Amino acid sequence: MRGSLNQYDSRIVPLTGRFAPTSPRKRGEVRKNPGCRIASRLVPTPAMADKPKKPQKLRARLPRGLADRGPAEIAATRAMVAKIREVYQRYGFEPVETPAMEYTDALGKFLPDQDRPNEGVFSFQDDDEQWISLRYDLTAPLARYVAEHFDSLPKPYRSYREGYVYRNEKPGPGRFRQFMQFDADTVGSASPAADAEMCMMAADTMEALGIPRGSYVVKVNNRKVLDGVLVWIGLGGEANAGRRLTVLRAIDKLDKFEPKEVRFLLGEGRKDESGDFTKGANLDEEQIEAVFQSLKYKVEFEASDDGIERQSLVGEVPGRFLMQKEGGDLLRQGRSELVEISKLVTASGYGPDRIRIDPSVVRGLEYYTGPVYEVELMLETRDDKGRPVRFGSVGGGGRYDGLVSRFRGEPVPATGFSIGVSRLQAALTMLGKLDTKPAFGPVVVTVFGGEIADYQKMVATLRNADIRAELYLGNPKHSLGQQMKYADRRNAPCAIIQGSDEKANGKIQIKDLILGAGLTEIKDREEYLKKQSEAQYEVDESRIVEAVREVLARHDVKWG
Amino acid sequence: MRGSLNQYDSRIVPLTGRFAPTSPRKRGEVRKNPGCRIASRLVPTPAMADKPKKPQKLRARLPRGLADRGPAEIAATRAMVAKIREVYQRYGFEPVETPAMEYTDALGKFLPDQDRPNEGVFSFQDDDEQWISLRYDLTAPLARYVAEHFDSLPKPYRSYREGYVYRNEKPGPGRFRQFMQFDADTVGSASPAADAEMCMMAADTMEALGIPRGSYVVKVNNRKVLDGVLVWIGLGGEANAGRRLTVLRAIDKLDKFEPKEVRFLLGEGRKDESGDFTKGANLDEEQIEAVFQSLKYKVEFEASDDGIERQSLVGEVPGRFLMQKEGGDLLRQGRSELVEISKLVTASGYGPDRIRIDPSVVRGLEYYTGPVYEVELMLETRDDKGRPVRFGSVGGGGRYDGLVSRFRGEPVPATGFSIGVSRLQAALTMLGKLDTKPAFGPVVVTVFGGEIADYQKMVATLRNADIRAELYLGNPKHSLGQQMKYADRRNAPCAIIQGSDEKANGKIQIKDLILGAGLTEIKDREEYLKKQSEAQYEVDESRIVEAVREVLARHDVKWG
Repeated sequence: MRGSLNQYDSRIVPLTGRFAPTSPRKRGEVRKNPGCRIASRLVPTPAMADKPKKPQKLRARLPRGLADRGPAEIAATRAMVAKIREVYQRYGFEPVETPAMEYTDALGKFLPDQDRPNEGVFSFQDDDEQWISLRYDLTAPLARYVAEHFDSLPKPYRSYREGYVYRNEKPGPGRFRQFMQFDADTVGSASPAADAEMCMMAADTMEALGIPRGSYVVKVNNRKVLDGVLVWIGLGGEANAGRRLTVLRAIDKLDKFEPKEVRFLLGEGRKDESGDFTKGANLDEEQIEAVFQSLKYKVEFEASDDGIERQSLVGEVPGRFLMQKEGGDLLRQGRSELVEISKLVTASGYGPDRIRIDPSVVRGLEYYTGPVYEVELMLETRDDKGRPVRFGSVGGGGRYDGLVSRFRGEPVPATGFSIGVSRLQAALTMLGKLDTKPAFGPVVVTVFGGEIADYQKMVATLRNADIRAELYLGNPKHSLGQQMKYADRRNAPCAIIQGSDEKANGKIQIKDLILGAGLTEIKDREEYLKKQSEAQYEVDESRIVEAVREVLARHDVKWG
Repeated sequence: MRGSLNQYDSRIVPLTGRFAPTSPRKRGEVRKNPGCRIASRLVPTPAMADKPKKPQKLRARLPRGLADRGPAEIAATRAMVAKIREVYQRYGFEPVETPAMEYTDALGKFLPDQDRPNEGVFSFQDDDEQWISLRYDLTAPLARYVAEHFDSLPKPYRSYREGYVYRNEKPGPGRFRQFMQFDADTVGSASPAADAEMCMMAADTMEALGIPRGSYVVKVNNRKVLDGVLVWIGLGGEANAGRRLTVLRAIDKLDKFEPKEVRFLLGEGRKDESGDFTKGANLDEEQIEAVFQSLKYKVEFEASDDGIERQSLVGEVPGRFLMQKEGGDLLRQGRSELVEISKLVTASGYGPDRIRIDPSVVRGLEYYTGPVYEVELMLETRDDKGRPVRFGSVGGGGRYDGLVSRFRGEPVPATGFSIGVSRLQAALTMLGKLDTKPAFGPVVVTVFGGEIADYQKMVATLRNADIRAELYLGNPKHSLGQQMKYADRRNAPCAIIQGSDEKANGKIQIKDLILGAGLTEIKDREEYLKKQSEAQYEVDESRIVEAVREVLARHDVKWG
């Protein structure tokens, strides 16, 4: 290779600086210079270079919980995002985007998982000592945006955005630290009609993505129902915020754990199989019973003339609630909003096969204040070991009347919905709903003894005719066989060859690689020779564009 | 507003925790608990709540150097990215994406600006004590990607990707800490043909974006030319890496500073108008002279039969270089690669009006090892104070033969090109090349005394017919006038009204807001009345879809 002065060129630099791979530090061992701000360089200083260690190769790897994305995945995301956008725009929502970072205090701390030192958020301190965090969802930044631009926005303000969010959580199978969400929010409307609209939009989006009716359901509940009972059992007020959250998150586990296990979480705590202990909400028996009671309101469905089932809430509010005014009022209000939502979606033709009131929906995020909804895929598939996989929730949201108010000092009601794009994409891919088969690659112009500039010119001619094409840029001394192997790997529909003979006669060879691939299967000698001559043939160089177009038409090649 | 238990709901929480806005700390004052990992909560602890301070409203603001993006900007980016993608795909490049974070050591430290504590990069420490950084460009992550997946990739490997990058730099006008780049890279080809292809692709991209030929130019130079002279003046070897970089960055300033000022930067240092002193490279007079000499190779253009000018490098390599073998070889090799690139692009029809050899191009990034290129817009515009604004560089790149090798321990040549999407978009917007006029909003169905569910149903009917529509979700007691104001603000083409009379007769009113907007200009009474009746009229509710479609057709309304 050509020589160079650059320090990394073709050499392996010994890594002796702070970023050198370190052996794991022993528990309790103190790091001398924790260095909240990094100022070291990868380049060894002269002093370091005095004692050269054995040259060490840098390891190419990603931190856990992060992933690269190839062409098929990117194409699938692009298609999904376009379809979601179409639905949201049909609903009158307009795009707005915020940056990936915000002041930590503007985001607030509403994440359900707090088992990591910085509570699930990636943060760093700015030059002026203020803390900045990567967004962990798209709702908190939207609240900041609306509060900041309140006067210039139409109200109610409907908007949507897609983007990556970041969570500093323990990565696990299917659990990433960077993933994509697609959100829609309506700010400035306290009406249950705004929540109903979110649910209908969620249903429409699922169908736009190819998930048939009956294979998904939008479940709706209301935090007020739960909040009501929490006040009743004495968990109202600022001081109990933490315990309320513990209760909500315990209920949220009902889809994973047996009720008995959830009771432990509501009580003194729960020990899992591995022996790890999770602290509970420390409710007594009567309180736990009341919580479970509140989850048991029943929903009844009733057929009607227009074929759409009506949903209604049945079962009396338990008497004990009625005696306790504040809690009972909240609970009743929560239920009446659910009935209103149910009425609205039914009027628009959405029956419980699409949108269903469901008392078990809680949502883990702390900021919800009213109706909450969740989209569940009811499809099952099998993993590569043949075990059934239920996809569960692929999106959700709810009313967060407090988030914008934090900034404004006045009530600003809001409701929003978020699709877990990465999660939904994984589900759709497993279900075969996303076309991830590789598209055709470009036409490859091979280099076969002539001037590179001449081959380059052919490529330019093809590209100018809007044909995807590339010059073989590997070592020009590579054999034609090696170059054909590359063209196959690129999934090229055809290759162009020009040796000195062809050059002298103003000709080129077109090699149809799709026809060529089928040749090995032909047994009959005569047919083989016939097909072979169809798969590679000579044309005038001046006809290069037409000749390539003929190959593309022959195999109906269409690029992305 | 409805009551709620949520701690932030409609209340203003006193911020007394660590994230409370602080008065600026005095210089030198020590922070008691620098807290590299954040573990505090926004919620005041009970202990804090004992001494309540005056309730303080959280301020809605973004950290400096970050920006929100509205509908017009998002639409413009989307259109730009689609056009760039089309060109790159025509060149046979395929998409690949990496996450926003990488191990700090995998990214390396190659940024030009080191005036910030952590040298321009946002970083944090992971649970296992390893440092993670946000990517500051798309090249370093691509190098990691290719090294990690080397065996499964076709080689040469052509790929592209767009994405946000993050720089922890001092923000300034037009200088952001998050911005978008669109990169293309060819890994595994040492051929100048790969560099030539990048330059042609850059030129094609500018034209695809609507920048006419002659209004941009792709300038090409070669780091080897500069590296050669640096070796010659005694700045070769590992120990001089820092000084070499200082020299390169001083030369890079030639487009902003007078040569005299650059001489200061090459020598003892430079004091700017504000009195701030920048340390220089400490070269002596003879060394500085040699550096300037090396920048003076001349490029000559020559007309030819096919109308495309030929470029050639003229002027002897100064004798002093010839005596010093290593430096002279490098310099000659650099020049011969430039001649080769020039030959290749000329053969494909790209004259110096599009791609031009230019000795002044340096590129600030440390990792370049061979040809470097820069796309310059030669258009001028005026800022809002009428002062001329030159756009300058909107993209660039070069050969980085050392970046992948760092991981592989074997030579892996590579070259790449990056478009500053955010910067180019700002330029195109100022030049009026991007259509940023707001599109039409949705049809607004107003709420006028009837059941919300009935209005909701009309909206659903329109949406099911693929018409953008929304229900007025503000307070349903708002007057029709207030609702029309909202519809105007949403740029709605028309509004739907149904009062009790219309409801009883199965009718709706269609209000054409585009015709209606022109009414105020009409002087003649009869014409006014005629136009008014054309702007608002009654139709059967069952004809709602056709009636709205008529309005849309009348004004040629097309959405996104």
